[in-house]
Amino acid sequence: MFEVRTGELAAQLGGELIGDADRILRRIAPLADAGADCISFLASARHREQLQQTAAACVIAAPMFRELAQARPAAILCDDPYLYYARLTQWWAQQSRAAFEPGIHRSAVIEPGAKIHARAAVGALAYVGSSAIVGAGASIGPSCHVGADAVVGEHTRLAAKVTLGSACRVGARGIVHSGAVIGADGFGFAPTQGRWEKIEQLGAVQIGDDVEIGANTCIDRGALQDTIIEQGVKLDNLIQIAHNVHVGKHTAMAACVGVAGSTHIGAHCTFAGQVGIAGHLRIVDHVHVAAAAVITRSILKPGSYGGVFPFDDNVTWEKNAATLRQLHALRARLRALERDSS
Amino acid sequence: MFEVRTGELAAQLGGELIGDADRILRRIAPLADAGADCISFLASARHREQLQQTAAACVIAAPMFRELAQARPAAILCDDPYLYYARLTQWWAQQSRAAFEPGIHRSAVIEPGAKIHARAAVGALAYVGSSAIVGAGASIGPSCHVGADAVVGEHTRLAAKVTLGSACRVGARGIVHSGAVIGADGFGFAPTQGRWEKIEQLGAVQIGDDVEIGANTCIDRGALQDTIIEQGVKLDNLIQIAHNVHVGKHTAMAACVGVAGSTHIGAHCTFAGQVGIAGHLRIVDHVHVAAAAVITRSILKPGSYGGVFPFDDNVTWEKNAATLRQLHALRARLRALERDSS
Amino acid sequence: MFEVRTGELAAQLGGELIGDADRILRRIAPLADAGADCISFLASARHREQLQQTAAACVIAAPMFRELAQARPAAILCDDPYLYYARLTQWWAQQSRAAFEPGIHRSAVIEPGAKIHARAAVGALAYVGSSAIVGAGASIGPSCHVGADAVVGEHTRLAAKVTLGSACRVGARGIVHSGAVIGADGFGFAPTQGRWEKIEQLGAVQIGDDVEIGANTCIDRGALQDTIIEQGVKLDNLIQIAHNVHVGKHTAMAACVGVAGSTHIGAHCTFAGQVGIAGHLRIVDHVHVAAAAVITRSILKPGSYGGVFPFDDNVTWEKNAATLRQLHALRARLRALERDSS
Repeated sequence: MFEVRTGELAAQLGGELIGDADRILRRIAPLADAGADCISFLASARHREQLQQTAAACVIAAPMFRELAQARPAAILCDDPYLYYARLTQWWAQQSRAAFEPGIHRSAVIEPGAKIHARAAVGALAYVGSSAIVGAGASIGPSCHVGADAVVGEHTRLAAKVTLGSACRVGARGIVHSGAVIGADGFGFAPTQGRWEKIEQLGAVQIGDDVEIGANTCIDRGALQDTIIEQGVKLDNLIQIAHNVHVGKHTAMAACVGVAGSTHIGAHCTFAGQVGIAGHLRIVDHVHVAAAAVITRSILKPGSYGGVFPFDDNVTWEKNAATLRQLHALRARLRALERDSS
Repeated sequence: MFEVRTGELAAQLGGELIGDADRILRRIAPLADAGADCISFLASARHREQLQQTAAACVIAAPMFRELAQARPAAILCDDPYLYYARLTQWWAQQSRAAFEPGIHRSAVIEPGAKIHARAAVGALAYVGSSAIVGAGASIGPSCHVGADAVVGEHTRLAAKVTLGSACRVGARGIVHSGAVIGADGFGFAPTQGRWEKIEQLGAVQIGDDVEIGANTCIDRGALQDTIIEQGVKLDNLIQIAHNVHVGKHTAMAACVGVAGSTHIGAHCTFAGQVGIAGHLRIVDHVHVAAAAVITRSILKPGSYGGVFPFDDNVTWEKNAATLRQLHALRARLRALERDSS
Repeated sequence: MFEVRTGELAAQLGGELIGDADRILRRIAPLADAGADCISFLASARHREQLQQTAAACVIAAPMFRELAQARPAAILCDDPYLYYARLTQWWAQQSRAAFEPGIHRSAVIEPGAKIHARAAVGALAYVGSSAIVGAGASIGPSCHVGADAVVGEHTRLAAKVTLGSACRVGARGIVHSGAVIGADGFGFAPTQGRWEKIEQLGAVQIGDDVEIGANTCIDRGALQDTIIEQGVKLDNLIQIAHNVHVGKHTAMAACVGVAGSTHIGAHCTFAGQVGIAGHLRIVDHVHVAAAAVITRSILKPGSYGGVFPFDDNVTWEKNAATLRQLHALRARLRALERDSS
């Protein structure tokens, strides 16, 4: 099992170390669950009580908590403990996980013309189509599918069973989780005499650098032009991005969000879980949408938005829902009363 | 890169060609983005302004726009430009994509007794179970799973990583996108003493001709009888079709729709994204449901339906939601006032 | 085709057989569709009319329906016909399906150090990572991915194309359906200067005994500690379980439910389809939530909860939704009237 001394950690990641520099750390843990071989962190002043009660060997905290932190065997003071924690997990993972090994597994199928960098890895039972390009340091997981003419950027990692469709591109330093499907056909049909005539989807998907895409998330290829995911975007699991959607840089979406076709979403937005966004809308930068809201019109002003029916016990919500079906009529009755009483 | 002359295109696809028959076309593009080597189309009179401003070499338009279209180097006039565009994309894809190559990839695993037509294709690392049948012109993509006794109809294409469960059938000319799972067990349990006793799902899934099924969509096998998807149905990505559901012909569902068990949906219906439909309901033909509505009762009358809490800025919607929790009481107060004032 | 005599069935599964013990049964069918070679069941008194009209050879019914059941050639009387039906399907499946065959398919890839029990099965094109453990009687389906150090309990069955991430564990007698992804990274980032810094997810997923997990369902690994699914839990398709969620024993969730991070759900709960549950909540035992409700606060009292905007025809719901956006103001107007009239 991996272990590290407090002093070595601070030397690697910075911050002001106070207390014992030789303390051995074997786990990162939340304050409430930390034991005597754990490093923990205080991300918010709301949890300061936990700092008083923790058994952690070492805590990461803001300088304003210096006094409380001194009660621990060791502490690291820094301006943004949550960011420090993020970097700690990255460093920890790097130390404790198996090293990257380039090479192509003997069971992988590589079509003629595919260009796989000598320092890239292709896992067992993976498929790389003709003329696909896999960059230096990139890792194609076991059972992945990389279509013809697709491009995987440098140091990008596809977990097991990712599907990257033909001619689709993922930038550098990306992560795509298992079951994600990038580049399935967009949903496009022309109605004719009660049937649906398929509109072949001739575009692709373009994904920028530093993008993370969750498990079983789908990003469809564009109809004529490409679906665009800009750099730094983070998509959780089971998200649907329809054809010709544009997601601006550093926007993040939680699980189960669905975005309909041709909607243009700005940069630095956040969407909580299960949000739905209709097609052909425009959402500007710095818009934040609460869970499960359904966005049916463009949002042209930065800010926080939401809208869900409030849950309640069954009897109450059913009564309120039944009344809601008469709400417009209730308003009319209210108006009538107002008229009478004025 | 594929290219075609205007005259050749009109000869292939019909319509009245006006203007230059020798103009070279290299791309299909929306009016607003079309360049001098592009063909574009005007699908709706709402966008006629774009027709005036486009740089497209050739436009597809209705005869009523003859005059405007004449300003372009070439134009094709036809009664249904959107349908013409659909057929254009089909023809374009056929010309520009790799030709279908029958044959079984050396890395595929074919169980004894599977019947794969000599003019069918089975991709790399695909699996075809015992006694499965793959029809003429059908294509089983790389890493697909075709279970024992399953049937894939003629000219049907399974993209990479499709799962078709044992004894399930897909008709002719279908398309199934990556990650779709057809024939997982329906969700059936008998409660007993605080536990759930599994009801084995003994039915299968029957899918008609000309059906398209989106990426990561799930269609469960029936409990005793089969789950039925009739001909011409189009399902987008991440849809859930539970056991024993019946979806009538030419019905279309956008992404993230969920249909609970044993519900019977008619023909020619449309469901927008994230719609939920409860179990054991009946929905007649020609019903159209707006995004994210939750259908909790049968719909016995054709028409358009919907229902979502309207989104708003955070402060406003939270106030309205809080009041909604007292709506039934508010109605009672309104009634009291009405009684007093009458 | 499998067939059985009524007497043999009752000898295997119990209950009081009345009528013909030699009747041949070839199918299990609902009462309304049953033919002369079918066994059927009456699960609820609401369907007693169907018992009068069925053509089934044999019916399973409660003793209170003895008289009606005697009209059939044979009947099996028992206290819980639905549970009897569940066990009948289990027995039927066992008789009629291919026997379990241990062994490792020649096309599977097994990394050094993986421990696969001699009585376990690994399907075609499956991958088992280093130091993974597969228990006796367990079945790893074709094209499955079992990560390094993962554990699959005894008699657990992974259908085709399941992904079980490194160090994740599934208990005994479990079933995991195709496309499920267990152990993708939780969605964790620290915001910094307009970008998202990844928090490496160092936990895993722990799944108890007798758990069933639906197709394309995702269960993320924990950030520091593990995501926990307790014994007997049943999850339908396309469900999202975020990092560090705890699902108590024998809780069941229908398709398309999403649970955000660190929420603790009790035992014996049920969640209907498309329910959303926010993060960091606590939901006690024996809570039941109706379809598509969005749970935004902890639920500390057992009972039934719900909340969705009631659907209606398009014109009506749009009017009501528009009025809903002024609901808080309407309440104020109502109050003013009340004040005036008092």
